[in-house]
Amino acid sequence: MLDQTTICAISTSPGIGAIAIIRLSGSEAIPIADKIFKSPKKGKILVEQLANTIHFGHIIFKDEIIDEVVLSIFKAPHSFTGENSIEIACHGSVYIQQKILEILVESGARLALPGEYTQRAFLNGKMDLSQAEAVADVIASSNAAAHKLSINQMRGGFSKEIKELRGQLLHFTAMIELELDFAEEEVEFADRTELRNLTNKIEVLLRNLKDSFQLGNAIKNGIPVAIVGETNVGKSTLLNALLNEDKAIVSNIHGTTRDVIEDVINIHGTAFRFFDTAGIRETKDHIENLGIERSYSKLELATVVLLVVDTENPYPIIAKRINNIRDRISDSQTLVIVANKIDSGLNETIQQLEVMDLTDNEKMVFIAAKQKQNMDELIDLMIHSINIEAADHQDIIVTNVRHFEILKNAHEAILRVLNGLDSGITGDFLAQDIRECLHYLGEITGEISTNEVLGHIFKNFCIGK
Amino acid sequence: MLDQTTICAISTSPGIGAIAIIRLSGSEAIPIADKIFKSPKKGKILVEQLANTIHFGHIIFKDEIIDEVVLSIFKAPHSFTGENSIEIACHGSVYIQQKILEILVESGARLALPGEYTQRAFLNGKMDLSQAEAVADVIASSNAAAHKLSINQMRGGFSKEIKELRGQLLHFTAMIELELDFAEEEVEFADRTELRNLTNKIEVLLRNLKDSFQLGNAIKNGIPVAIVGETNVGKSTLLNALLNEDKAIVSNIHGTTRDVIEDVINIHGTAFRFFDTAGIRETKDHIENLGIERSYSKLELATVVLLVVDTENPYPIIAKRINNIRDRISDSQTLVIVANKIDSGLNETIQQLEVMDLTDNEKMVFIAAKQKQNMDELIDLMIHSINIEAADHQDIIVTNVRHFEILKNAHEAILRVLNGLDSGITGDFLAQDIRECLHYLGEITGEISTNEVLGHIFKNFCIGK
Repeated sequence: MLDQTTICAISTSPGIGAIAIIRLSGSEAIPIADKIFKSPKKGKILVEQLANTIHFGHIIFKDEIIDEVVLSIFKAPHSFTGENSIEIACHGSVYIQQKILEILVESGARLALPGEYTQRAFLNGKMDLSQAEAVADVIASSNAAAHKLSINQMRGGFSKEIKELRGQLLHFTAMIELELDFAEEEVEFADRTELRNLTNKIEVLLRNLKDSFQLGNAIKNGIPVAIVGETNVGKSTLLNALLNEDKAIVSNIHGTTRDVIEDVINIHGTAFRFFDTAGIRETKDHIENLGIERSYSKLELATVVLLVVDTENPYPIIAKRINNIRDRISDSQTLVIVANKIDSGLNETIQQLEVMDLTDNEKMVFIAAKQKQNMDELIDLMIHSINIEAADHQDIIVTNVRHFEILKNAHEAILRVLNGLDSGITGDFLAQDIRECLHYLGEITGEISTNEVLGHIFKNFCIGK
Repeated sequence: MLDQTTICAISTSPGIGAIAIIRLSGSEAIPIADKIFKSPKKGKILVEQLANTIHFGHIIFKDEIIDEVVLSIFKAPHSFTGENSIEIACHGSVYIQQKILEILVESGARLALPGEYTQRAFLNGKMDLSQAEAVADVIASSNAAAHKLSINQMRGGFSKEIKELRGQLLHFTAMIELELDFAEEEVEFADRTELRNLTNKIEVLLRNLKDSFQLGNAIKNGIPVAIVGETNVGKSTLLNALLNEDKAIVSNIHGTTRDVIEDVINIHGTAFRFFDTAGIRETKDHIENLGIERSYSKLELATVVLLVVDTENPYPIIAKRINNIRDRISDSQTLVIVANKIDSGLNETIQQLEVMDLTDNEKMVFIAAKQKQNMDELIDLMIHSINIEAADHQDIIVTNVRHFEILKNAHEAILRVLNGLDSGITGDFLAQDIRECLHYLGEITGEISTNEVLGHIFKNFCIGK
């Protein structure tokens, strides 16, 4: 059912550049290119050229020279799509790019759909589905950690893990199904203790993968940070100081609801997503307590909570605030107590804060946001508050929400297997849950896929990829 | 004095794309690429590969895989710059593009200056200066006619013409200088009648080239169009009707003075530049006559003047307006009388307009702008009001303001030669003016160039070209 049509698209960033690349892929890619390409070498035609070679010449249409180009030939299966492909490097005027595309369409190609090159690469077995999905992540990644994860996934790291899991499960289910064949004889090919150990192991693996999504998502989309605290403690100054970091790349992301604006900052290769918690941007007009309540309401979305306190206040007041927020912080969150205004703060307050007992997921830093004092220390704390380095030690980190949803389902299925083993249910029920788990894992790599799923995945790709 | 440093730059349009191209050029291009490129084929190194070949592999830096790339090798002199060159096609994330650039710089390349690739192509004799300038025009051209002229110039059409002129002049001056050697003997190697014919011929050629700039500039930057007329005749409606043409691509260009905004519209491959003449955008608040005066003030900049008249008015009033504007139109301009509101106009007025005498550079069209009636006819008139087709029949059209300025100087020098011949001045004075003319023509092709001129030309290129 493979679509063999020859497709074409501009593959470089839209707009004017020194050069642009137009990509042609499909069974007729090379003959179509021959129709419009003329080499200065008499009689040279592309269909006779070797794979992986480069040719200088002109794009000519209706006797008009459209451009001088450099054309590259790729041949199936050694191309990105696995099909015969041509890449035309032309001058990067928008006019030329559009014109060549027009000419290609008039010569028998059709415009590619979003992600159609990558979809063909998947359908031609050049990569599995999770690798194909990673291609889009590679292109979209804007920081070192996200880039590293996506490159790893594109190169098949994630698929390898999933395939190993599937292999273990297959072995598992084979043994159980063998038992079913001999049901009357009540033999146990699958030793229940061994099965239990294996199931436990798989459950841990699936759980770790599933749990890695929090980290993966933070890396991919930025670590969610909430800045909370009373009015006039310096939240706004702190946010601005962070936004103004020399190394920071700042952008505004408009959320789904109109009142949520997030600032994404890239610091030392790590992206942070700052919630615009109430009280940061519009302190003045709010009744204090109401403002604080609203700040708290988005706390649960944050991986890092920066509680800003004003060291100009007496210690008991600050301690009360800290205890107040401690109740709202879960174990998986990091609370950073940001003791601000140390340039003008009370010595006694600072000293008492310094000796305050902190739990494992609590940190404290002393800064003067206005003077940008100790900002580096705060940034270090934020970077280390989420264990980004875990990404270096953990082979696989899930970043894709589709994979996360599937892994949740797979994990639930394997938990049912465990429960089944505990309650001694029959092999056929066990096998059914395992099959379900196998099915889910197959959905990740694309061994099991529907047009609907594929359509959903690739429609979010850009055209030309 | 050639700079042999290896330079690198992103050559595709900035921003995210499916792929991006990073270009490396210079004596060390291939060894530098070898430092960061790893082929899956063991032991394969780039310096041993043939020219015009393509290689799949990874960009690796400090043991980290940065990307999977496709790398193309070009070898001197068969590359764009004439130097050894490498093109790296990477995934088009901004992160990867920047990272690879960083790695290349750490590996011994330096960031390219604007236009530095093209400048090297010029300095290495791959193209002359007017061809190099055309590269920027090719990239910038946004309509068919401008594209065609720039491609022609890039391919050397313009240079050929200039070189022929120079050849004729050189022959001319050689004969005169021969006379100077034999000055005492009063011989005339250069027959004065022949010389006069040749000088006349060259004068005509230079004049034609110089004069072609009006057309060339109109094609390159859009045909300048002024819309004038009294208030309430429908100027604003007409402009909007033109702007809303389905085939039109509209953009706003902010001029050098704050009050000049120009709308550039691309219709059927021809660009038109509409002046925002007073009275079009802000009719209501103006005293009528003042408004009209202001409309007229920019008339001389226009190649096409659209005089909009309202056929609801009696003919004598309209005739007076037409005569009024006729005095302000030069022979090189086209006056299009746009008789508007024919749906509601006076029959008598329309009939009398239809039989009105028009000169060669006057046209009339009857439209109803509001109903978009007869707009095609108006557009046809506008397109043909400037003889764009002349571009098809005339070999060379000057589009570059630097060339235009030089040609003006060259033309003045040749006029001095003609005058000198008339007044019988001595050969040494003749020779001096001819040498001057030769010098100017050499500046166009770059046979004579200074760093200052080159710097000025290439600083306007984009980086990566």
